[in-house]
Amino acid sequence: MTDVRILGVAGSLRRGSLNRALLGAAIKLAPAGLTIDAFDLADVPLYNGDVEAAGDPAGVTAFKNAIRAADAVLFVTPEYNHGVPGVMKNAVDWASRPARDAALNGKPVGIIGASPGQVGTARGQSQLRQAFEFTNSFCMPQPEILVFRATEKFDANGDLTDAKTAEFLGKYLEALRVWTLRFK
Amino acid sequence: MTDVRILGVAGSLRRGSLNRALLGAAIKLAPAGLTIDAFDLADVPLYNGDVEAAGDPAGVTAFKNAIRAADAVLFVTPEYNHGVPGVMKNAVDWASRPARDAALNGKPVGIIGASPGQVGTARGQSQLRQAFEFTNSFCMPQPEILVFRATEKFDANGDLTDAKTAEFLGKYLEALRVWTLRFK
Amino acid sequence: MTDVRILGVAGSLRRGSLNRALLGAAIKLAPAGLTIDAFDLADVPLYNGDVEAAGDPAGVTAFKNAIRAADAVLFVTPEYNHGVPGVMKNAVDWASRPARDAALNGKPVGIIGASPGQVGTARGQSQLRQAFEFTNSFCMPQPEILVFRATEKFDANGDLTDAKTAEFLGKYLEALRVWTLRFK
Amino acid sequence: MTDVRILGVAGSLRRGSLNRALLGAAIKLAPAGLTIDAFDLADVPLYNGDVEAAGDPAGVTAFKNAIRAADAVLFVTPEYNHGVPGVMKNAVDWASRPARDAALNGKPVGIIGASPGQVGTARGQSQLRQAFEFTNSFCMPQPEILVFRATEKFDANGDLTDAKTAEFLGKYLEALRVWTLRFK
Repeated sequence: MTDVRILGVAGSLRRGSLNRALLGAAIKLAPAGLTIDAFDLADVPLYNGDVEAAGDPAGVTAFKNAIRAADAVLFVTPEYNHGVPGVMKNAVDWASRPARDAALNGKPVGIIGASPGQVGTARGQSQLRQAFEFTNSFCMPQPEILVFRATEKFDANGDLTDAKTAEFLGKYLEALRVWTLRFK
Repeated sequence: MTDVRILGVAGSLRRGSLNRALLGAAIKLAPAGLTIDAFDLADVPLYNGDVEAAGDPAGVTAFKNAIRAADAVLFVTPEYNHGVPGVMKNAVDWASRPARDAALNGKPVGIIGASPGQVGTARGQSQLRQAFEFTNSFCMPQPEILVFRATEKFDANGDLTDAKTAEFLGKYLEALRVWTLRFK
Repeated sequence: MTDVRILGVAGSLRRGSLNRALLGAAIKLAPAGLTIDAFDLADVPLYNGDVEAAGDPAGVTAFKNAIRAADAVLFVTPEYNHGVPGVMKNAVDWASRPARDAALNGKPVGIIGASPGQVGTARGQSQLRQAFEFTNSFCMPQPEILVFRATEKFDANGDLTDAKTAEFLGKYLEALRVWTLRFK
Repeated sequence: MTDVRILGVAGSLRRGSLNRALLGAAIKLAPAGLTIDAFDLADVPLYNGDVEAAGDPAGVTAFKNAIRAADAVLFVTPEYNHGVPGVMKNAVDWASRPARDAALNGKPVGIIGASPGQVGTARGQSQLRQAFEFTNSFCMPQPEILVFRATEKFDANGDLTDAKTAEFLGKYLEALRVWTLRFK
């Protein structure tokens, strides 16, 4: 079995974030033939074209290298203000550069998310997905994971306790494994 | 005549940015009864709920205070990767907090943008606009300013040289003045 | 008290539609000073510029006249395929014409929706809202009504049985009344 | 060389439509190994779940069969009111049904468009693309075709006269051929 390596990125910097917890659950639930490594966006600064012209900051270089080394990227995104969080989009903005040789170019991508409310980050995911059209990344269209009322589905340690969500997540990851292999 | 004060925010940190230049042009072209003051996002860090819980950073406090002191906010946004830049959305994410008493709540808003290519930031503006539904801000629907092929319309000093764009911008700002007064 | 008249439009042609039922509930729950009349889209055909050039079909004329006679329009929209239903968007496409004198120009607008699943038409509402930027209609940003798991909230006759939804809907309609009066 | 068959669908019913003309140009410019057949949406009525329950109308059956018989679908879409035209979305709404066995499920898709103005249907394409996430269709992310100022690029007979657009379109179609073969 070809082993698939996925880079997992949570779009929140908060330690107790539901989406960091969801990424943690994905790492644990990865099916055979799939490994997920988390990348922390804490060291990816705000995008600034003048800074970029002087050379990528270390955190950006690390992010781009991690994307290049992975077979696919799993973005685990909150929804803020009916859209993708600035923190998450900012990381994508860096990784889309330079346009002619971007780390995200031709990379398979999955998007999932969790929210305390009902919509489960539906609008955040839709906006994020639009970015990957421009970066020429290959977003898996289905299945989808929108974890609503997520505060009821993780315990105080950030461990996923909802069996149905765990089952869906396992199936999603297996689908992402197969999707990634399509493009290898 | 009631004087209207607008806060202008450009969504790029790059010194030579076309959208900073467009904001500069708006400041100069403001009609009678309207003044625009620019706020620089350089000191608004990446949103982090843990940092927020410990108290807003100085740059965030300054941004929120500037919004509160203004009658309306003019967002001048680039388009990155078919959407709103992370830098711009990140500032909105801060200003949307706390939900019960956000600086953007009930604030009139205008959105304009410039791009080197053809679309003139159409998709970036659409995504940014979605955020203001959640923040309960009052976005002016028309007219619109989408400055396409903007590199041909500003000189090396960042001064607007295209007469048609200047005329449109003047009309836009007068419309934004009237729109803002609707909500006073 | 100034009386406000609202035109209500459901984006589904199916008799037993949840969104037709939601519009029915809105009509019943309209607060003092507000009346809602429903318009049925069954007679608004597919948009065709050649047909329009020969003269609006009767159903289109009726729709435009009903919009003009109302103080505001309440769109009650399903979500199909992560977006606004073609049936609903098609009606807006007709009502946006001619651009220089469209029925929707300068009209206050509210958007609500119901879905059997979790997202409560979040993405359908977001897409529909984008249309009203172009038509220069004034969309109320908050509050929002996203009726999720709607099949559990209406009875077999299409009557709203969920008390919490009824309460939210009443508050929404009162807010829409006040919003409409802002623009009178 | 494996021959690829593509179904082409224009989102306008108007005879002189720029997008019908663009589809006509695509048919003529199809590279070796690719054939494009046009499907006219004139006979696809407004979606109505009651009608569907009684059995698909003939135009809908023909549309679904044409999609199933094709290796991929090319949607040529106008932009109306900052979004996808109701006519186009309505056709997708039919073709997305039934969810468990939809004609669009697993189908490669391309989206292009033409507009008289500057944005070249950017927002219409973005909205349409969102639908294909739900239908589990495989949208090609790049390259993109946004034909702006299209009235200057077609003659009175609807023939494409702009050499640069013709060159881009040829490259786009070759990319769509290769994209389609990925999923065969």
